[in-house]
This record gives sequence, structure tokens and C-alpha cells, in this order.
Amino acid sequence: MSARLVLGLDVGGTSTRALAADAASGQRLGIGRASGGNPIARGVSRAAENIGAAMREALAGHDAGEVEACVVGMAGESKVAAEPGTAAVFAALWQAVGLRCEVRIVSDVAAAFAAGTPESDGSVLIAGTGAVAAEMVGRRPCRWRDGNGWLLGDDGSGFWIGRQAVRAALAALDGSGPRSALLHNVIAAYLDPIPKPPEGGEPGETRFLASALIAAVNERPPVDLAALVPRVLAGAAAADPVAQHVLAEAARLLVAALCHIREPGDTTPIVLAGGVLQPGMHVDLLVRAALAETWPDAPVHAATDGAAGAAWLAALTQAPDPALHAQLMAEGGTGDARTRLG
Amino acid sequence: MSARLVLGLDVGGTSTRALAADAASGQRLGIGRASGGNPIARGVSRAAENIGAAMREALAGHDAGEVEACVVGMAGESKVAAEPGTAAVFAALWQAVGLRCEVRIVSDVAAAFAAGTPESDGSVLIAGTGAVAAEMVGRRPCRWRDGNGWLLGDDGSGFWIGRQAVRAALAALDGSGPRSALLHNVIAAYLDPIPKPPEGGEPGETRFLASALIAAVNERPPVDLAALVPRVLAGAAAADPVAQHVLAEAARLLVAALCHIREPGDTTPIVLAGGVLQPGMHVDLLVRAALAETWPDAPVHAATDGAAGAAWLAALTQAPDPALHAQLMAEGGTGDARTRLG
Repeated sequence: MSARLVLGLDVGGTSTRALAADAASGQRLGIGRASGGNPIARGVSRAAENIGAAMREALAGHDAGEVEACVVGMAGESKVAAEPGTAAVFAALWQAVGLRCEVRIVSDVAAAFAAGTPESDGSVLIAGTGAVAAEMVGRRPCRWRDGNGWLLGDDGSGFWIGRQAVRAALAALDGSGPRSALLHNVIAAYLDPIPKPPEGGEPGETRFLASALIAAVNERPPVDLAALVPRVLAGAAAADPVAQHVLAEAARLLVAALCHIREPGDTTPIVLAGGVLQPGMHVDLLVRAALAETWPDAPVHAATDGAAGAAWLAALTQAPDPALHAQLMAEGGTGDARTRLG
Repeated sequence: MSARLVLGLDVGGTSTRALAADAASGQRLGIGRASGGNPIARGVSRAAENIGAAMREALAGHDAGEVEACVVGMAGESKVAAEPGTAAVFAALWQAVGLRCEVRIVSDVAAAFAAGTPESDGSVLIAGTGAVAAEMVGRRPCRWRDGNGWLLGDDGSGFWIGRQAVRAALAALDGSGPRSALLHNVIAAYLDPIPKPPEGGEPGETRFLASALIAAVNERPPVDLAALVPRVLAGAAAADPVAQHVLAEAARLLVAALCHIREPGDTTPIVLAGGVLQPGMHVDLLVRAALAETWPDAPVHAATDGAAGAAWLAALTQAPDPALHAQLMAEGGTGDARTRLG
């Protein structure tokens, strides 16, 4: 059976998702998954390999030549476009996959916003491993706040929450902060088995444990700290006061970022995305409560599927049915989208 | 001429200093310098090479066999002692240098404290690339606060100040913070020449500049952010309000760390050390003002020469003259000690 297809991709640092859909109805025809495809994070040849794998899986059983429009959402997209070597590798990849249409690379922020709303103007707040807020005009970011990476920014992000959780554990160990179940949760995430201090070592077992925890955290890539987020969210849900304090501060920082790029009284939609803002979880509830106070007349939407957002942006170029957005989003994400810390 | 010698070393992540002195009079007989000798940061064979080079330079013209006591100050000293491979490499090194005495490895905190005061009890606050506060009893640290490394702690350190300076520059670029000369100073430190945005790129030149700055900072090791400290100190001295704000916050965090490990009313000496606390500079003045309020009866000393502090600890084992400490410290540091961010 022949179909008019659109193809959307959400390319992150740790995972890549692709969605092929019917350009007219929005019916989802295939999904594909691969590991990270960001050329800045992964290197261009490895990135191209993963993007190609996700595309081919999504298009399995269909003719890639029938894809009428393709949009790829990716962080640092302007840097990718400005780099001739990267652009050439991608051009060769589109050809190898069999695409005959133009492939448009947009910001990951644009894909997330499009996943949350069919509107063209509004705001988007993403808190995954990183964190960024952007004002969207014509579905493109025109003002940003943060998104500055773990070393310099990403305040309130998954990395930030993980770092604060370890800092809280260290404060509990040196007596400058309260002890709670979070201390044991953090230690369990990094130290298995829990090491015993050597005889004649430094004074105090807690200092030894702190040193072991610090060493274990530093042995992994810094962004791995975001892997603590599920433990902190679970702790907050179980009323752990330290976990709740960390998440309340994260929510405050995320809302503050949005306040910097969004005027009071704005009634355009606000889109929330990323693993830290999982619908119904602690940070999401706190952020939504703050948004309701500051922008009571603005609709707030969760974006769980950036690949479907990218597919929607692709379909837009084909003058689609107004019901297409709802159809594209209907099936609830290309798998791991809901829980990804992207 | 034969002499009774003591040998002290201050082994840091970026530099190693050694001082050979007369065990009886404290007269400084030789100094040696090499690059970083911390086995955790550098690897054990490279560390041993640098420690050996600094020792040999300090002992040039003297018989290493005449050294009666040797103390090495080093961060993570208990981890070094607990690692049999490292201990064996060091034992071979002491033999190769020709030392016949025992070599005692102590915390860098102990060497800094000993450099600042001949007293045995008190507190020490170090702010170099990292930051740590410790309560000293019998010249050994018995309670610590921070010293947790750049990823998880070191609040108020040189790394922390550099990161805050770049954050302030990014805030100036995105309009969420004030602009001052610090913005240009930070950009000049990382971007030379200042890149021009590509045509058709992201909206706004400031966003482009921010991305370039973030990329440049991330291309270097994170602790290189501490290299911004002299620019921030100079800015504060020239009344730059943003630089002054960053340093005021650093001073507040450093004093807070000390408050955690030192009781109110304590009259034992407080020793300040590290490049961020250079005597007479902005952070030093702010910290001293806060200390004078909290502990009005405690003497505050600057420690500028950790190698001399280690030599003093070595001399202590030889029942020295009471005037020896003053004599050892009299000549003002083993060279780069004053400005080192150790």
C-alpha cells in the first residue's frame, strides 16, 4: 500500500526516537529507537549511525522515497548547520536511507513545543538531564533562558537535582544538614557494597563514607548524576523532607527561568517536557501550581513525545487536517519518551 | 659542611614545592619546585617523578642522608596510605632520593595550618582551586567541612568563583543579570578572537556569543575555571559591582564552612590559606571582617607556604628551638606559594 508519509525525529544525547506517520491522517505507522544521536555529544559518524538506525526502524515496511517531509529536532542545531563536515555527513545519510524530501533540522525545544500544542506561539519549559525555557513565536524559539549545560547552568535540571541530592547526603554525613532516607538512597546508588574504613585511617567513619561517595560520583560522567532523579522523586512521594526540599528548589528555579522569558498576563500555552517534569510527579505538581498563580489563563500541556512533535512540524509543511495534531499525539509517545531524561 | 636537615613538601594537584632547612635553627637551605605531585590527580608514577624532582632541587648541595625528618603535605593522604601500590612506589622514591629517615605523609590541611601558626589547636580555612575548612587538634584535622571537590562542593573556592563569573556573564548576555566590565573580561579570557555569528543562524547575537562562551569553557578541564580568579579579584578592586557580588558570596560561603566546624567564643588561632584568600585582596578582607565579628579574640594568620609548614612539622619531631617557626616562615614562601591556587 502506498502512503504519503511524514517522518519526525527527536535526537537527544542519550537516545534517538523516530516516528513515521500518515501525512494526511496523522496515523502512526512506525516508530524507531536508537541511542544518542547528537553529533556534538557523540561525534558525527556515531551520531549519523544512530539517527539512520532509528529512521530505518520507523520506516520498516514503507518506502523511504514516499516521505514527503522530515523534521529532526536536535540540541545545538545551529552549530550542526554551521559545520560543513557535519552537514555533508547528514546529507549522505538522508540519501543512504532513501529520503527524497528535504530534511529540516530544528531545535529540540521546537520539537518539544510542537509535541505539546498545535499553537504557533507560547512558551516551553524542558527539564530533563538539562533544563531550558524558551519563548516560541511561529513555533521557533525567539528568547531563551538557561540551557547552558551542567557545568555552567541547567538550574533545576535532572543533573542539578542529582547533584543537590549528593550534596544533601554529604551534609547529612558531616552533620551540617538533616539525615533522612535520601542519604541511604544516594549511598545505595553509588556504593555497593558500602566500604569499610581502613584501620588507622582518617578520624570518623562518616568522613570515610563521604570520601568514598565523592570518589564514586567523580568516577562517572557528571551528567550521570541525573540518574538519581527517580530516587529523589520517589523519596518526595514518600514524604522525605530532604528530597522534597531539593525538588521544591528545582521547581522554583525552573519557574524562575520561565518568568525571565514570559510576560505576566500572557495567555498563550505553556508546554512542559522532560523526565523531571513527568506529569503528576512532585516537580510537575509544584511547577503547575506556580504557573497557575502567575499565568492563571494560560493552558499548560505536557509534551511527552518529541519525535511526534517533529513529525507534526513535518506535516505542517503539507497543509494538514486540523485534527492531525491530536491524532499524532494520541498514542502516547514513542515508547521511552515518557521517562527519558532528555 | 655537615648539617642536621629537615625536609618539608607541599604537594598539590598543579604544583609541588619542597623546602630543606636546618633542623636546629630553621635556616632555609634550599627550595625545590615541580609540577603537580598528587597521585590521585596525576597518576602515581608521574606524581613520584615530580615529588622526587622537587626534593632533589631542595637538597642540592646537601647530603639527603642527613635529613633527620621529612613531612609531605598532600590532599587525600589517607587514600594514598591505604593503597599498597602507591605506598610501594613512594618507599622506592624515598630510597632513590637517598633519604634515610622516615617520611610522614600528612593532610595538606595540616601543612597549611602548621605554616600559619606554631600552635597545635585552632582552625584552618583554605580557598584555592578547592575549598575546605577544618578544626585542628594536635595539628591534625579532627572535623572537616566541604573539601568535596568541584563537582559536588568546594563552595566559595577558585573554581566556584570562576563558574559564578561565567554564570554572571551568561546572565548579562541573556538580559537576566546586570552588565559590567566582568562580562568583557570573561569573554576575553575564553574567546580570542570574538567569533562572529553565521548568517541565518540563531536569532540574536548575544545567544550566539553565549553558546560560543559555553563551548569554550566546556572544552577545558572544569577546574580551569579557577584561572578566572585574578580577573574577578582585579574587577572587584576596580569597583565592578558584579565581581564584588560574586566575591562577597564566596566569602559568605567560606565563613559559613568555618562556622560549621568552629564553636562561638573559640579563641584559638584561625589560619587562612590559598590563592582566593591572598592577604589584602577582596575575599581576604571580607573574610577577616566576618571572622573579627564572630571570633573577636582569635588571632588570624595567613599561611602562604605549605612546604615550610611541612618542614616545621618535620622539625617538631626533633625537639626544636621555640623560635624555629618564625625563622622557617621568615623568608616569605617557596616562590609561587603566595599566588598558587592550591
